[in-house]
Amino acid sequence: MDTTKKTIILFSGEFDKVMAALIIANGAAAMGDDVTIFCTFWGLNILRKTGPVSTNGAKKSVLQSMFGRMMPKGTRRLGLSKMNFAGAGEPLMRKVMKDQNAMSIEELFDSAREQDVKFVACTLSMDILGFSKEELIDGIEFEGVAAYLGKADEANVNLFI
Amino acid sequence: MDTTKKTIILFSGEFDKVMAALIIANGAAAMGDDVTIFCTFWGLNILRKTGPVSTNGAKKSVLQSMFGRMMPKGTRRLGLSKMNFAGAGEPLMRKVMKDQNAMSIEELFDSAREQDVKFVACTLSMDILGFSKEELIDGIEFEGVAAYLGKADEANVNLFI
Amino acid sequence: MDTTKKTIILFSGEFDKVMAALIIANGAAAMGDDVTIFCTFWGLNILRKTGPVSTNGAKKSVLQSMFGRMMPKGTRRLGLSKMNFAGAGEPLMRKVMKDQNAMSIEELFDSAREQDVKFVACTLSMDILGFSKEELIDGIEFEGVAAYLGKADEANVNLFI
Repeated sequence: MDTTKKTIILFSGEFDKVMAALIIANGAAAMGDDVTIFCTFWGLNILRKTGPVSTNGAKKSVLQSMFGRMMPKGTRRLGLSKMNFAGAGEPLMRKVMKDQNAMSIEELFDSAREQDVKFVACTLSMDILGFSKEELIDGIEFEGVAAYLGKADEANVNLFI
Repeated sequence: MDTTKKTIILFSGEFDKVMAALIIANGAAAMGDDVTIFCTFWGLNILRKTGPVSTNGAKKSVLQSMFGRMMPKGTRRLGLSKMNFAGAGEPLMRKVMKDQNAMSIEELFDSAREQDVKFVACTLSMDILGFSKEELIDGIEFEGVAAYLGKADEANVNLFI
Repeated sequence: MDTTKKTIILFSGEFDKVMAALIIANGAAAMGDDVTIFCTFWGLNILRKTGPVSTNGAKKSVLQSMFGRMMPKGTRRLGLSKMNFAGAGEPLMRKVMKDQNAMSIEELFDSAREQDVKFVACTLSMDILGFSKEELIDGIEFEGVAAYLGKADEANVNLFI
């Protein structure tokens, strides 16, 4: 075991939970830790490219296309897990954070990348939700549960968010 | 400490979170790990027998009976934590998974049992929700928080889902 | 590492999840463990004083005041994460627990404090939500993510609830 390794499974895709994961990851990276965020299920959404993507003819089912259209791309419009008020909660939370000069979720994400926090897309979730590698941002890794477990075995803090 | 032990507290009873817990548990068990899933609160529902159960005259309060009737039995009809659409989301997710030849939640559950993943029913949650042992499936254990902590102390990955 | 240390990040502010955190914390403390609960985001609400508080002229933005008014103070009226029924679920759950002679959430909280479970208010969350120290109960600590990580590195069980 190594006290300088941390893993986070980011299962949730809500603004506040993604914020929590990124704050912990940035904090640990700033202290010199090797941090890996495994994005599964709704957490995958933060890794989606925001613009239209050519998927080179990869086929999605009708349902996968529907899921894809309804879910957010990247960190914009994630919604809050509480007090969401049909989507009004997130811009209010963003406004409060800006007034407090707190880092935005996009700045936290960029900072994590600059500090070499590893973002991993769960390949099983990608299969189920129909996301191809082309639809996800560059510079991430693609792994399954076995790889997660291997990293978790080497880490001393493993969180599920 | 032993890197071959893992514990998961399954607090949530939603389809997608139960899936995540079972995928991690199956993966760890396949790698030879000793995995325990402590089912508490809504997570207890996956351990309920699906048919009518004679509880040998054990008395439930009106509220416990009401909770019991409204909550799902087993892994069917758990609902999604996001995009549930009044229950329509889960069958859509099941359809997508079937199209992808992904293991169903029932197959994951059976596989976990075959791989000797231990399922533990939290006795305090059983008392509160009014579940007797007869109402839960066979082959599970019944323990409290002290037993959980004992196992967590021996494990190197402890998740709360 | 020390098997007698545990940390819990209490991110959620719902009745059932707060209950789970307090039950684990009390159990671990009863076994002699040193337990720290880091209250962030919605979890901060359980540390709020219940009565009106003079904040000595500290200014809140309109949005912070709004958030503050809409969120619960202390452990009363937290709501359930499932089967909340517009707030009706929590009193039903409290009634069931009382009928079962289970400890109430307030008793669990008091018991945790008596057993020296450390409650920490996340200072970043306080800044964002606009909570001053005067608005939170006495006898707690105020720390950021670095302090959390320091404690997590010393603990053998670290949960995110």
